[in-house]
Amino acid sequence: MWEVAGELGAMLVFAEHRYYGESLPFGQDSYSDSKHLNFLTSEQALADFAVLIQYLKKTLSGAQHSPVIAVGGSYGGMLSAWFRMKYPNVVVGALAASAPIWQFPGMVPCGDFYKIVTQDFAKSGPNCDSNIRESWRAIGNVSSTASGLQWLSEEFSLCAPLKNKNDVFSFKAWLQETWVNLAMVDYPYEANFLQPLPRWPIQVVCKHLAFDSAVSDHQLLQGLSQAAKVYYNFTGSSACLNISQTATSSLGELGWFYQACTEMVMPMCTDGVQDMFEPEDWNFQAFSDECNAMFGVRPRADWAGIVYGGKDIASHSNIIFSNGGLDPWSAGGVTHNITDSLVSIMIPDGAHHLDLRYSNDFDPPSVRQARELEVKYFREWIRQAKRKPHPRL
Amino acid sequence: MWEVAGELGAMLVFAEHRYYGESLPFGQDSYSDSKHLNFLTSEQALADFAVLIQYLKKTLSGAQHSPVIAVGGSYGGMLSAWFRMKYPNVVVGALAASAPIWQFPGMVPCGDFYKIVTQDFAKSGPNCDSNIRESWRAIGNVSSTASGLQWLSEEFSLCAPLKNKNDVFSFKAWLQETWVNLAMVDYPYEANFLQPLPRWPIQVVCKHLAFDSAVSDHQLLQGLSQAAKVYYNFTGSSACLNISQTATSSLGELGWFYQACTEMVMPMCTDGVQDMFEPEDWNFQAFSDECNAMFGVRPRADWAGIVYGGKDIASHSNIIFSNGGLDPWSAGGVTHNITDSLVSIMIPDGAHHLDLRYSNDFDPPSVRQARELEVKYFREWIRQAKRKPHPRL
Repeated sequence: MWEVAGELGAMLVFAEHRYYGESLPFGQDSYSDSKHLNFLTSEQALADFAVLIQYLKKTLSGAQHSPVIAVGGSYGGMLSAWFRMKYPNVVVGALAASAPIWQFPGMVPCGDFYKIVTQDFAKSGPNCDSNIRESWRAIGNVSSTASGLQWLSEEFSLCAPLKNKNDVFSFKAWLQETWVNLAMVDYPYEANFLQPLPRWPIQVVCKHLAFDSAVSDHQLLQGLSQAAKVYYNFTGSSACLNISQTATSSLGELGWFYQACTEMVMPMCTDGVQDMFEPEDWNFQAFSDECNAMFGVRPRADWAGIVYGGKDIASHSNIIFSNGGLDPWSAGGVTHNITDSLVSIMIPDGAHHLDLRYSNDFDPPSVRQARELEVKYFREWIRQAKRKPHPRL
Repeated sequence: MWEVAGELGAMLVFAEHRYYGESLPFGQDSYSDSKHLNFLTSEQALADFAVLIQYLKKTLSGAQHSPVIAVGGSYGGMLSAWFRMKYPNVVVGALAASAPIWQFPGMVPCGDFYKIVTQDFAKSGPNCDSNIRESWRAIGNVSSTASGLQWLSEEFSLCAPLKNKNDVFSFKAWLQETWVNLAMVDYPYEANFLQPLPRWPIQVVCKHLAFDSAVSDHQLLQGLSQAAKVYYNFTGSSACLNISQTATSSLGELGWFYQACTEMVMPMCTDGVQDMFEPEDWNFQAFSDECNAMFGVRPRADWAGIVYGGKDIASHSNIIFSNGGLDPWSAGGVTHNITDSLVSIMIPDGAHHLDLRYSNDFDPPSVRQARELEVKYFREWIRQAKRKPHPRL
């Protein structure tokens, strides 16, 4: 956006989603009582954006008839797509980068997400995925004794030592999220999206996990600890690793949990065969109970599909869905053209919304081409909008 | 709908709008406290319809892949159009009959509505509109004395005699609404939509208002009283006329007032020249103050335009906007084709959503043709939907 705004004569507007960052409708109390959370929905956020744009058009000199394009990545990409679907009068088009608008119940297989994570590791180093698949059993073995728990805690430089089965469960969940996050940010150059990381971080991770099958549990877990530290301590500044802190907390995790617990129900599952994780079915009831315990709400599993159209979106127009082949969220993304003006752009060597990042000398050709094509569509939408007579309002 | 459902193999579903009829979310308390009214919005109503249709498709055998068409008249027509705009995944098309989706601030001149009412009277009998235009002054003259007030009350067989200037103000407002309602229901045959009425009721009304300019105030008002009684006492069963009761109360007036006071802000004005009413500008502030007094809310004047697109709806598809030439609501309706699939059907001899009524021997050819064309579009939308592969959900 920063790189093309000039040539398009565009103003960039970053609208903060309600309940995130500083946009807290009830100040510090916004999350303290679930009744304050009633106004946290994607629909309300879209309405905010619509009102904001109308306000800017009214108040900024020369903006009245400026076509507006929505751009976003991840959940922001979903919002961009939905914004064009619900407010085609407000935005002439949308770039939905790495937007998993189909990661909802019944739309895509629940296991595809973790399959892609696994593939990223499989292709980044020999035995990498199989050693991670083995690691869960090794953790189980080693953590079955008190001394093993202590060894594991020390080996991983954990801030709080593992004490019991619950801690081990959390430890595994934290590792699983680590591998997922690495898949999301497997960028071709040093970057700092969720964490400061080397270029192609999964390749660096996999250097520590290249053992053949003869390896012992302890050796494997030593490699695993080195691998985890690529993610958590690339800069060498972490004194210890905190398994209760994951790298996404800065993204407003609590708000997202609430939205997942109300409208953004995203089924995920693993089978340990087509992916490198411990098998776990999608359990809506358990998820719903968790939501009820945390916020006193129960998720509406079908609502996202009803309100945003699910697979049935062909009547909309002017939306680019870009997806990275390395990005697990592409599992729930639109990865084929739906119509001439609802198009998919695939970036085989891209991770999570790589196309939205600044251009870089290490960028693969696929993302350069994607960006070029995206700007071409922008120009076309703007041309369409300018051809159209202005409605007299 | 009743007449074509069979040939289309359709099921008819009448969904009651929340807060109307028996659909009271807080039972008898729904209107007692304005905090209970927070859930009364057109958007929530549309969401109800979407969830209802999804539920019916899931639970009714054979309904899963049935295309659904939204049909409605007046506010229901607005909802139909908006339903297709916002939920094109749920309905394949919409018939929006007499739907004034442009009767919002800045979209159409505020005086057009009353101009059409006036034209209906002008063409229904000699001097009819000019005598009504004169009547306001005559009421002012006669009501300036106590004996005049009494005479007026008796002449109009009012249930409660007029006592003061305030009562006279209400009396005039009640008459104005009477003429508006007659314009809405000026049907070519005996009907009972707002009131039981003769065929072409305005022609009958105008028989009592054909005086030339030499008429006295009292004579004019005697004619006016006969005219009003066509509307209020066609069946002869009314012992007296109650000016605090208008004929639309059965339509859920209070709910509509609340919606007008929040999202459905519809500017209206009169000038006494191009219409037959006393001049009155559109006064948003006064309207807003009234809303604040009644419900403790202030209207969002721009919201309907933002959320439903105003004049900028060309990117939508498969909506028929039908309008009657006699219907004052056609002033805020879509009366020209916007695209090939956002089409206008004009019924020059039609009043308010005549096309949705049962066919009748007295129907003008224009409404017969309109209905035929509407069904032709229905068939085309169903054909389109059946050609499309079913999304796998």
